[in-house]
Amino acid sequence: MDDRIRAHAETLVDWSARVEPGDEVVMRVAEGAHDLAVAVAAELGARGATLLATYGSDEVQRAYLRAYDGDFAPAEAERALYDRADVYLSLGGGRNTTATADVPGETQSAYARAREDAREARFATDWVSTVHPTRSLAQAAGMSYEAYRDFVYDAVLRDWEALAAEMGQLKEVLDDGREVHLVNEGTDLTLDIGGRTAVNSAASVTYDSHNLPSGEVFTAPAGAEGEVTFDVPITVKGRRLRDAHLVFEDGSVVDFAAVEGGDALADLLDTDEGATRLGELGVGMNRGITRPTDTVLFDEKMAGTVHLALGRAYDACLPAGESGNESAIHTDLITRMDEGSRLVVDGETIQRDGLFRWEDGFAG
Amino acid sequence: MDDRIRAHAETLVDWSARVEPGDEVVMRVAEGAHDLAVAVAAELGARGATLLATYGSDEVQRAYLRAYDGDFAPAEAERALYDRADVYLSLGGGRNTTATADVPGETQSAYARAREDAREARFATDWVSTVHPTRSLAQAAGMSYEAYRDFVYDAVLRDWEALAAEMGQLKEVLDDGREVHLVNEGTDLTLDIGGRTAVNSAASVTYDSHNLPSGEVFTAPAGAEGEVTFDVPITVKGRRLRDAHLVFEDGSVVDFAAVEGGDALADLLDTDEGATRLGELGVGMNRGITRPTDTVLFDEKMAGTVHLALGRAYDACLPAGESGNESAIHTDLITRMDEGSRLVVDGETIQRDGLFRWEDGFAG
Repeated sequence: MDDRIRAHAETLVDWSARVEPGDEVVMRVAEGAHDLAVAVAAELGARGATLLATYGSDEVQRAYLRAYDGDFAPAEAERALYDRADVYLSLGGGRNTTATADVPGETQSAYARAREDAREARFATDWVSTVHPTRSLAQAAGMSYEAYRDFVYDAVLRDWEALAAEMGQLKEVLDDGREVHLVNEGTDLTLDIGGRTAVNSAASVTYDSHNLPSGEVFTAPAGAEGEVTFDVPITVKGRRLRDAHLVFEDGSVVDFAAVEGGDALADLLDTDEGATRLGELGVGMNRGITRPTDTVLFDEKMAGTVHLALGRAYDACLPAGESGNESAIHTDLITRMDEGSRLVVDGETIQRDGLFRWEDGFAG
Repeated sequence: MDDRIRAHAETLVDWSARVEPGDEVVMRVAEGAHDLAVAVAAELGARGATLLATYGSDEVQRAYLRAYDGDFAPAEAERALYDRADVYLSLGGGRNTTATADVPGETQSAYARAREDAREARFATDWVSTVHPTRSLAQAAGMSYEAYRDFVYDAVLRDWEALAAEMGQLKEVLDDGREVHLVNEGTDLTLDIGGRTAVNSAASVTYDSHNLPSGEVFTAPAGAEGEVTFDVPITVKGRRLRDAHLVFEDGSVVDFAAVEGGDALADLLDTDEGATRLGELGVGMNRGITRPTDTVLFDEKMAGTVHLALGRAYDACLPAGESGNESAIHTDLITRMDEGSRLVVDGETIQRDGLFRWEDGFAG
């Protein structure tokens, strides 16, 4: 076994999920994640946790959903499982990223709605999502399998303690800040973040961070004025979106365009009222991620990028009892902070030309 | 997809497990059983059942058990899952029948003991075990993959309704009977079955039958006198056992021998007091199974064979409140009922030369 698979498993169990002896662990294994599952099982065994492995097969799911006719029943048994579980580890990594492309969207939504209780119970555990590199994901990224594996492990096997400390500096600035000013090519945007709390997303439940890899600091902006261009391409529901450009007035999108995928963007904005407002401002800080791979789990954490999400805000960023932007979607759009870019908080430049003020070469 | 996979799934869901709309189903998927899992998922979807798939990976299990050090905790979360589940479908079919050969037996036993509650909850559901044909199982059977698939589907895709009716005749004879006399080459054995109830194991929970394929009628003998030779070879804990010969006095084994594996037989008999007594008399009636494959799930159901199990008796065969033979083992030993054989109940010949009295060619 590749030593990096073992290191990935150890990072997941120790740093990310903080598994303790006696913890009851449910581990979801995607079709292509077998090798990582074996490595994680060894880590869980060594820590004296219990283990139930579930099979997260897109093909099983597709067959089930396509055959279903009628209303979905709630999944009480599955909910009972998660109610008792302490930790949920999702090992992604399928064999075909478009395996469920022929399941109608309404079916998928209806299924998701019926299972809301089970999902909430799962999110109440110390849950962590990660992916095992597969040929299918390499293909989606336009990379060879070997190169993609290197890419994934560079992103996952970081010095998370050190990165958490670095990200803590940005969190402090954002927590204290009232106004963010984002300047880049095609971008001049002002965001109101007063009273919001930033999450230091250091790939560990201890930091309210549930992705491995992670490596971003994010908060929930309340208002937005100006324009922004997203030059990192993404796929939205199977459609390519390139160089999306949004104009905000009073917090809402009032104009938009895209070099490719303008119709996909229109559909997205049309979802509901909240889809035209921002739910998240995130700053990518993972230097192990050096290129986009059309997977948001990685792309949004890429060092030297900033992302904004249309749609739902996360509770962790909001004052207790206050609800932020609400929407059925949360879609991250990403811009590279290259030469000429600036991230300014309350008049103070925090990042210029993609370099933070605490980095060598920063030109204040 | 091979149409037989679909037919297998339909038989499992409809005939065996009798899945109803709204049933909560847990489906265990072995490493090599993916294709059957997809077919079963479609059947469950079409019936409006819920579905949680678990991953029954021997390699995950091996890694977990080998890494574990100390006492195993009970699996409360898993137990909660089975407590709420209506149906449990186990889709066997691995990639290596010896995948856990280097897990110490004590570890496996300790793990099984700690999880007794979860296991009991699973057995309280309408559970059914089946196998998907894999290359690994074909190899264990000494067969090509193509031939093995034909073998499995011949065994599974029966006219179960008709077989259940035929087996019902034998059940009636055994239910009313007091004494079974078994005559074969190297076999002259008398078994006391008075007051015991036979199970018509027709591969359906409706018949208290939890294996697909099945196709046997079995009961629990109370006493045994005489000798018996088992000419179908089996593997007991990794050791080959061939032509085992047992001599019974007053219900217990008093002498034994084997052409191969005598030490394995000695170890078996040495397990506990109950291991020297019989827990089951079974009569194989599945004509789709025409050769032994060293897998008890199939071998014991082979038409024209009779098997006796050393060890534990099943409650379904016993009068309410009465406990039968108790033991940590239940090991089936099989004999072919060829030319010259006889199965006699209370002086009446039920089977001669491998043919039942209701079959063409039976020579009463």
